[in-house]
This record gives sequence, structure tokens and C-alpha cells, in this order.
Amino acid sequence: MILRKCMAEGIGTFWLTFAGCGSAVIAAGFPQVGIGLLGVSLAFGLTVLTMAYAIGHISGCHLNPAVTVGLAAGGRFPTKDIGPYVAAQVAGAVVAASLLYSIASGSPDFDPTKGFAANGYGEHSPGRYGVIPALLAEVVLTMMFLFVIMGATHGKAPAGFAPIAIGLCLTLIHLVGIPIDNLSVNPARSTGPALFAGGWALAQLWLFWVAPLAGGAFGGVLYRWLSEEPSAQVTGVNPATRTV
Amino acid sequence: MILRKCMAEGIGTFWLTFAGCGSAVIAAGFPQVGIGLLGVSLAFGLTVLTMAYAIGHISGCHLNPAVTVGLAAGGRFPTKDIGPYVAAQVAGAVVAASLLYSIASGSPDFDPTKGFAANGYGEHSPGRYGVIPALLAEVVLTMMFLFVIMGATHGKAPAGFAPIAIGLCLTLIHLVGIPIDNLSVNPARSTGPALFAGGWALAQLWLFWVAPLAGGAFGGVLYRWLSEEPSAQVTGVNPATRTV
Amino acid sequence: MILRKCMAEGIGTFWLTFAGCGSAVIAAGFPQVGIGLLGVSLAFGLTVLTMAYAIGHISGCHLNPAVTVGLAAGGRFPTKDIGPYVAAQVAGAVVAASLLYSIASGSPDFDPTKGFAANGYGEHSPGRYGVIPALLAEVVLTMMFLFVIMGATHGKAPAGFAPIAIGLCLTLIHLVGIPIDNLSVNPARSTGPALFAGGWALAQLWLFWVAPLAGGAFGGVLYRWLSEEPSAQVTGVNPATRTV
Amino acid sequence: MILRKCMAEGIGTFWLTFAGCGSAVIAAGFPQVGIGLLGVSLAFGLTVLTMAYAIGHISGCHLNPAVTVGLAAGGRFPTKDIGPYVAAQVAGAVVAASLLYSIASGSPDFDPTKGFAANGYGEHSPGRYGVIPALLAEVVLTMMFLFVIMGATHGKAPAGFAPIAIGLCLTLIHLVGIPIDNLSVNPARSTGPALFAGGWALAQLWLFWVAPLAGGAFGGVLYRWLSEEPSAQVTGVNPATRTV
Repeated sequence: MILRKCMAEGIGTFWLTFAGCGSAVIAAGFPQVGIGLLGVSLAFGLTVLTMAYAIGHISGCHLNPAVTVGLAAGGRFPTKDIGPYVAAQVAGAVVAASLLYSIASGSPDFDPTKGFAANGYGEHSPGRYGVIPALLAEVVLTMMFLFVIMGATHGKAPAGFAPIAIGLCLTLIHLVGIPIDNLSVNPARSTGPALFAGGWALAQLWLFWVAPLAGGAFGGVLYRWLSEEPSAQVTGVNPATRTV
Repeated sequence: MILRKCMAEGIGTFWLTFAGCGSAVIAAGFPQVGIGLLGVSLAFGLTVLTMAYAIGHISGCHLNPAVTVGLAAGGRFPTKDIGPYVAAQVAGAVVAASLLYSIASGSPDFDPTKGFAANGYGEHSPGRYGVIPALLAEVVLTMMFLFVIMGATHGKAPAGFAPIAIGLCLTLIHLVGIPIDNLSVNPARSTGPALFAGGWALAQLWLFWVAPLAGGAFGGVLYRWLSEEPSAQVTGVNPATRTV
Repeated sequence: MILRKCMAEGIGTFWLTFAGCGSAVIAAGFPQVGIGLLGVSLAFGLTVLTMAYAIGHISGCHLNPAVTVGLAAGGRFPTKDIGPYVAAQVAGAVVAASLLYSIASGSPDFDPTKGFAANGYGEHSPGRYGVIPALLAEVVLTMMFLFVIMGATHGKAPAGFAPIAIGLCLTLIHLVGIPIDNLSVNPARSTGPALFAGGWALAQLWLFWVAPLAGGAFGGVLYRWLSEEPSAQVTGVNPATRTV
Repeated sequence: MILRKCMAEGIGTFWLTFAGCGSAVIAAGFPQVGIGLLGVSLAFGLTVLTMAYAIGHISGCHLNPAVTVGLAAGGRFPTKDIGPYVAAQVAGAVVAASLLYSIASGSPDFDPTKGFAANGYGEHSPGRYGVIPALLAEVVLTMMFLFVIMGATHGKAPAGFAPIAIGLCLTLIHLVGIPIDNLSVNPARSTGPALFAGGWALAQLWLFWVAPLAGGAFGGVLYRWLSEEPSAQVTGVNPATRTV
């Protein structure tokens, strides 16, 4: 059962990384009619929205180590399953980055020095934001992401709508933050492209693990405290609505 | 109970102001691939859509003094709770503006003279609209916002969809009105950035309290009259659908 | 009861015309960050989506003479009520255009010769399309609009989702057709701005009544035939899902 | 009964091709305010979203030979009906391309050498991607499309939301892939415009049949394997949720 869930998480995180980063690498800056940061924001959100309807009833559709850790901190996910989930997510993201590299490099206009959608701060930030604003943004945005996830999948929230709320929350987060550091809130999504972008991306990768995981945990705890849920009790909500 | 609701309103209005104004300050005018006014409109709407699914069942998710006052005028909210709700909303917006300032000023391209997404008319209007068109637009758009909120949360409307209708209504309102005065329809959202934009923004802030509150009250009364709801009777609708 | 329905139709068509045409006049061509035809398409669709949740349970939320006539042709609306509905829709659109004119003319950049979002063909078409392509496009797009409306409000379609399907169908129609003739599919929406745009707009207004009404009727009949609904029998579907 | 279903598939695929390709030909590159690839992506997705609510309860709303074949491979569609469905889809797409040609050629700015939204690789790819990246992209994107379709229409997924998930999945796919080969994932959509674009488009059409059909079949099988559905057993899910 855990194996099937991990397969679903791997496929889903493949989709998030392939289509999200793919929209950035292939279509964002296309001359004249490119989709821009608005299109990339929509793409990332729609990877989660589509997968949450497709595999939410299988694995909960986290697709993101920060979500898995945040839900555990919020008392909604068993800590013993964090390891396998995160491993599957990272594996899916790495396969996605590799396939995306194969396709994107098939255009004579492909420029590997443009960063391949990897996350970065300082001179590698799209808007030249420093390490402190990047840290702050990743912590706060991941915290609010988990807050929305916890709330939209609460038993009192309308059933069936959580994938819309959560997917479009990821779109919203990207609408704010891409200029800061290409926006992560997801260590798996950051790890895949960093392997192909080379030295600086790997050197800065620590931030995109530390900040989202910390922010996610804060968000899970904050919502649990606000909603006065009994800690550590996994509620009997329909799994289809307990999902990213 | 009122404390928990006010905490939810504070966090939600923080999100509306941080992510809505953040998209404007950080991403709207980004060179070549910026999200533009369309992206900002989407961002403001999605702050409400996401929070309404997350905290609608806790506080009703007003996130806006004009909504709180409009719902009271429409007979859907107890007048005695207006004070605490509005205080929490303004507090959340001020914290949001302060955090946004910390992050946005972390880029060497940050220009504090650009207005920091504060609302303004006359020479501070993006399209140089005067005080009368700004007043008119804020009154009419907030009135229609409340009309949609009252209708979409009515007991005969389909359950669970109100956050979509209301969030995307805020997007629609921004699609029309940002060039007029950066668009408020929300005194709390206007107050946060005005504190950081300085003198002119504070001097013009009165309009973004007066017009939305008046428009909101008109909208609440208009819908109640149209739907022939018994005045002052708070109907027994599911709180999850009684929400912004 | 018919009076209350007509009030709702008037307010709703006011919203469609004010916010739809308002987005075009005020925000579409704003320098650098304007919302473009994509933003205008989204705005028109969202006027219908938001109003359908707000007043669908009151009047069915047609907001459009072509919808009223098409639903009558499809056996879903009593022919005796066509007159009052259409009168209310046109009145709402005229008030909207008048208010929009007051606001838009409050900017020193307002250019009354730009057409005020009125519909036109030939030299008044944005892309200089002739009268035949304009006719063809209006007939086919309105026909498909009614086809989707009839289908999405059918008793076997999922309940509650019709406003999303129908609103976003209007967005889709605008994504295709604004360059042809500014896109109508709605005689009321065409009539309001034409009164302010002056001579040529009134001279060409006939097309934006004839083509949408014909297309709407075709669409209503086509769907009824396809779904083998017994003619003229108004089915007992929940009014909230029998709506534009 | 099969005749009525095929009529619905024909009308629906007409809509997908007419409005999807129409947005590309008429509105994508309109000067200054054109909808760009983001608008075209939205348009394709909304053709499916709108039709799925309108005819999902009649035919399942495939609108795409790759979906029909993929659902058959996934055990959700009887193989004996593949032929009539595909024939109706292709017929609808050809009629759509013909009507679109009539309308689009009504502008003096129409340029028939621009490809008429036909799919192509190599020198006919918008971003000059070769045949291998095009093949890879079509296979992978169609596979993931079917994966989402199978999942979102599964009996355990929330009822009624599948058209949103599936329509927006097609939007997402276009956000990633238009620069590669104008994006197909749908042999019927590719065939219509190719007939009007002339020699090269017909010469390259094989790829846009082979790759989507193969990818679709992979996706259907992958999901069935993941969800451990008993092969070849058509489950008793509400047809309205068993749809593209």
C-alpha cells in the first residue's frame, strides 16, 4: 500500500516538475507571445490541481516534502511515512528534470546558461534579491501554503474543492515570488533542475530545503492551533479531500 | 470564540494584503515577463478564494471591513462583532505591509517612490483619474462585490461554490479598476501600504474607507431587498457557504 | 415575481456591461501592464460566473436577449416572459454604459473616438474583418454558447457547476473573437456602448441583434434535438442550475 | 444511441478545433493586446471544460482519438466503439477548420503562409524543435493527460469536478508545449488545420497520430496498473464524471 502511494507521489512530482519547470524553460520567454511569469504561475498551480483530482484518493497528493512534513507537523500524516514519501518525490523530480533537459535541448535556441528554472538568490535571483529576502519569502509563503492546505482539507470545509483551493494557492504564491528566487516552496522541485544547472544551483540548494521545510512545519502547527484540532489525531476525513 | 475568529480574520487579511500587494510590487512590472495588471487581478482574487476554503468555516472569511459592514447591513452579521473583526483585519494588513516592505526592499531595483501599491487618485492614480471617478468606482464596485457575496452565500445558491464566485469577483473588479486608483474596495488593504508609502497616501486614505464602506452597505441592502430576506434575521445557512 | 426576476436581470446585465466593457475601455490598453484581450475575455466570463451564483436562483441569470430567446427555442423558458426579460437586460446595459462613460471620461487619457468598446465590422472591426465573417462568427459562437448553456444546465449534468461552464464559455468565445468585431453574442451588451459611440455604432447595431438572436435560437434547438428533450416541456431542474 | 453519441463527439470536437485553433489564428498575435500562447492555452482547455459539462452525460466527451484509445486501453471504453467515435471526431475537426478558414480569411491581415495553427516539427516548429523532442513531448504529455483523465473520473475522485481537472490539464499541457510543435496531443485537432495548411503539414501529420495514440494508450494502462482496477471491467461510475 505504501509502495502504491509512493508510486503515485513519484508520478505526481514528476508532473509538477516537468510541466511547471517546463513551462518556464520552454514557453515563458518565447518571443512576442511567451506566457511570461503569469503563465508559469498558472502552470505550477495546475500541476497540483490536476494531480490532486487524479491521485488525491491514492496518496493524498503531496508532491512536495514541505507538504509532507507540514501535514505531519499538523497532525495529519504519520511521521513514519515521511521518508518514503520524500524519497519518491525527489526521484520523480529528478526524472522530470532529466526528461525536460532532453526535450528543451532539442531547440537551437536552448541556452543552458539561463539556469534551467533552478532556484537561486543573490546574483542568481531573477530580480537580484539577497539571501535574507529569499529565506523570508520561502518561509512565509510555504507557511501560508500549508495553512491553506490544512484548512481546505479540514472536515468542515466544502468537500471536493480542496484541489482547486490548493492548486490555485500555488499559482498565487508564484505570482508573488518568482522574481525573488524563481520560487520553490518545494525542495523536490528545486533539487531536480539544480542537478542540471550545475555548481551555483547546488551550492544554493540548502536554502530551498531548509526554508520550505521550516515554513511548512510552522504552517501545519499554526492551523492546528487555530482550529483547535486534537494533536496527532488523524481525523477521519475523506481522503479525496485530504490532499494537495 | 470571537478571539479565534479574529485570529483567522487577521491571518486572512495578512494573506490578502501580502500576496495581493506583493504581486503588484514584486512581479507586475518585472521586465519582459512581468505579470501585469492581469496577474495582480488574479492574485487578489486568489487570496480570497484560497482563504475562503481555509477559514470560511471559522470566521466567514470577510478579510475586509467593507464586507463585514456590508454583511451587517444585509442582515447577515451581528453588528456587535464589527469592531473586533475590523480591528483584526487592519492589524493583519499592517503586518503584511511591513513584511512585504522588508522583502521588496531586498532587491537593488526596489523603488520606494513608486507608491508601494497604495491607493490614490488625481496625480497618484495610475491613469490620472480624478477624485470623483475614483469615488464612483469604489462605491459601485464594492456595492456589486457585496451583491455577489450576499447572493453566492444565499441558502438557495449551490453549496460550496461561494469562494470561487467571490474570489473571482474580486479578480474581475481589479480587471476593471486598477488604472483608476490601484483599486481598493477594502479599507484594510488600503491602510497597510499607505503607512509605508508616506504622506500623500495617508492624506488620500479617507476615500478608501468612506467609499468602500458606503458601497458595501448599499450592496448588502440591495441584495436583501431583492431577495426579500427578512431583515436582521441571520439565516441558518451552512457557515462554510456564508463566506467571502 | 416577474418584476423581481426582471430587477435581477437588469442588475446582472448592468454588471456584465459595466465590468466587461469597463475592462476593455479602462484597462486593456494601459501602457506596459495592460490586461489585453486576454484580460477582457476573462472579465466578460467572470461577470456571468459571478452573477450566475448570485442571482441564478432568482431569475436564471440570462443577462442576454440571445440567451433568453435561445432557451425559449430550446423549450426551457416561457415565450411570454421574453419581452420583460429583454427590456430589463437592455435597460441594465444602457445604465452601465452611461456610468462607465462618466468614470472613463474622468481620465485625461480618455479618447472618445476609440469606440468605447462598441461592436463593429468593416473599418470598425479591430482586425478589419468584413460583414460576412462578423455575421458568421456571431451566429456560430452564439449557437455554441447556447449549446453549452443547454447542456450544462441539463438535469443529467453535475449540479452547481453550470455557472463555471457558462461563464468560462463566454471567456472562451471572447478569446477567439474580439479581433473580428469586438465580440458581442449579446444584443444588450452591444446596445449600451453603441449609444455612446455614436453614428457608425448605431448604424451597425442591427448585426449584433440579428446574428446573436438567430445563433442562440439555432443552439437551443440543436441541443434539444441532440438530447431528445420533449419539446416545450420545462423540466423540473433546480433553477440554480438552469442558468447562464 | 451510438449515433447520438457520435453526433455529440462531432459537435464537441468541432468546438475544440474551431475555438482552440481559432484563438491561435485570430487572436494570439494581435498587435499590442494579443492573447499570446497563454490565451491559446486557456482557450484549448476551456473547449474541453465547457463541452464536458455540456455533453459529458451524452458521450463521455472524448473529443480526441487519443482519449478514446487511451480509455479503451485503460479498460474504460468498449473497443468496438473506437471506430465511430474517431470518425466523428475527425469529421468535426475538418468542418471546424473549414469554417475557421472562411472567417479568418475575411481579414486583410490574414496570412495563409503562417501555418493556420497546424502542428509541425523541425523548420515548422515555432521554436525549431526537431522530430525527436516533438515525438517525446507528444508521447509524454498525452500519457499524462490520460493519467489525469483516468484518475479524475475514477469512482473515488470527487464527483462533478472531472471537467475542471481535465480541461485545465489541457491548458497546462499547452502552457508547456506550444513552442515545441504547436502542441497536438489530439490527432483530430491536428488533421483539420493540416488539410488547409498544405503540403508540409500533411507530410508531418503522421507524428501527430502516432505519438498521441501511443502516449494515450500508455497513460490508460499506467493508471489502471497504479489503481489496480480489474482490467476490462467498465466500472459503474456516473457517466457525467467519466468524461474528458
